[in-house]
Amino acid sequence: MIEPASAASWVDENYVLRIPSALSPAGAAPLLCAGITTYSPLRQWGVGRYHKLAVVGLGGLGHMAVKIAKAMGTEVTVLSTSENKREDAKRLGAANFAVTSNPQTFTKLQGYFHYILDTVSAPHDYNAYLNLVKTDGTMILVGAPEAPTPVQAFSLIFKRRRLAGSLIGGIKETQKMLDFCAQHQIESDIELIPIQQVNEAYERVLRGDVRYRFVIDMTSMD
Amino acid sequence: MIEPASAASWVDENYVLRIPSALSPAGAAPLLCAGITTYSPLRQWGVGRYHKLAVVGLGGLGHMAVKIAKAMGTEVTVLSTSENKREDAKRLGAANFAVTSNPQTFTKLQGYFHYILDTVSAPHDYNAYLNLVKTDGTMILVGAPEAPTPVQAFSLIFKRRRLAGSLIGGIKETQKMLDFCAQHQIESDIELIPIQQVNEAYERVLRGDVRYRFVIDMTSMD
Repeated sequence: MIEPASAASWVDENYVLRIPSALSPAGAAPLLCAGITTYSPLRQWGVGRYHKLAVVGLGGLGHMAVKIAKAMGTEVTVLSTSENKREDAKRLGAANFAVTSNPQTFTKLQGYFHYILDTVSAPHDYNAYLNLVKTDGTMILVGAPEAPTPVQAFSLIFKRRRLAGSLIGGIKETQKMLDFCAQHQIESDIELIPIQQVNEAYERVLRGDVRYRFVIDMTSMD
Repeated sequence: MIEPASAASWVDENYVLRIPSALSPAGAAPLLCAGITTYSPLRQWGVGRYHKLAVVGLGGLGHMAVKIAKAMGTEVTVLSTSENKREDAKRLGAANFAVTSNPQTFTKLQGYFHYILDTVSAPHDYNAYLNLVKTDGTMILVGAPEAPTPVQAFSLIFKRRRLAGSLIGGIKETQKMLDFCAQHQIESDIELIPIQQVNEAYERVLRGDVRYRFVIDMTSMD
């Protein structure tokens, strides 16, 4: 019987993931949350090269959604409250960008999308976004506003639309996501910090001031 | 050029349906609304013999949903506010019946259904019903409450559930529905009235006092 060196070294092989060598450890770390959270619904719903996808919100989840969907061949539009995300959206691979504070966005893009991936956890009007979805299209929630959001039945009944949710992904799908990201050279955009800066980083997270994930360098704990 | 006998006799052949002779005209009439409204989503979502379906509300739409889903081989459970619909639910083909005024219904049936067909237009809590849906299951709205209904994102995110809508159906699908109903000897449960009773019937509709559709005998207009 082989004894583990210490309790901490025990790992059930069913829960081990292989990080491909093409990925840097720091850039890969957020893939295990933001990466799989956005990859999974795109795969489950079969989003691909013939689809128009809107990504709502360009944060930790949204920026991964743009990179991954773009690598899947999808035409990505970023919908953001903030005009100053426009350049980043394009750099990350979005074909289009529209500001949601401009009401014209919601008339111009009516019925334009096959899918919407909604990464926003702040309160917002689902009905306005559902109206941008084509017949038989789907809006997928991966962000979760604290309070319930009012949904008008006719937002779904007209054009036979769907509102769906997705949480994260299983181990098998997470490995597929990592391999996909390695193949397409996709990492998370990160800011590497030593553990000593964690409080300051947390304040910045609350302010939304991070593009797009903090990663703590664990060697700074030595 | 062939002249029509009168303007009223002009009918575009693309919008003509054939009522199978196996169906009575009165029993078939509501199929063109309540029948197709419930048949269409069941077909679109592929509901069939390996599925557990809840029909919420046993009215004009609900009673057709029970008959049609039963004929598709589906295990149907009627969820109703009213205990006095229990016998009808069974008679119409439901395998199970549960009263939604009893909170135990929502603990006992948690995660039980592949699909829910929600025919209710009165306000009700979607989240409570979504909680009865299995992983990857779908709740389909064909009833439309006037006010928007609050939806908790986690009701959809957990178990990757879907909330969908469906309106009615096209001509081709309506013909298929009529043929399906003829094949399975399905008609609407109706009360035939002369046109002279239309005001009284309307009051009864408002009170929910009809099992399950009034049909006006047009010969009473002569």
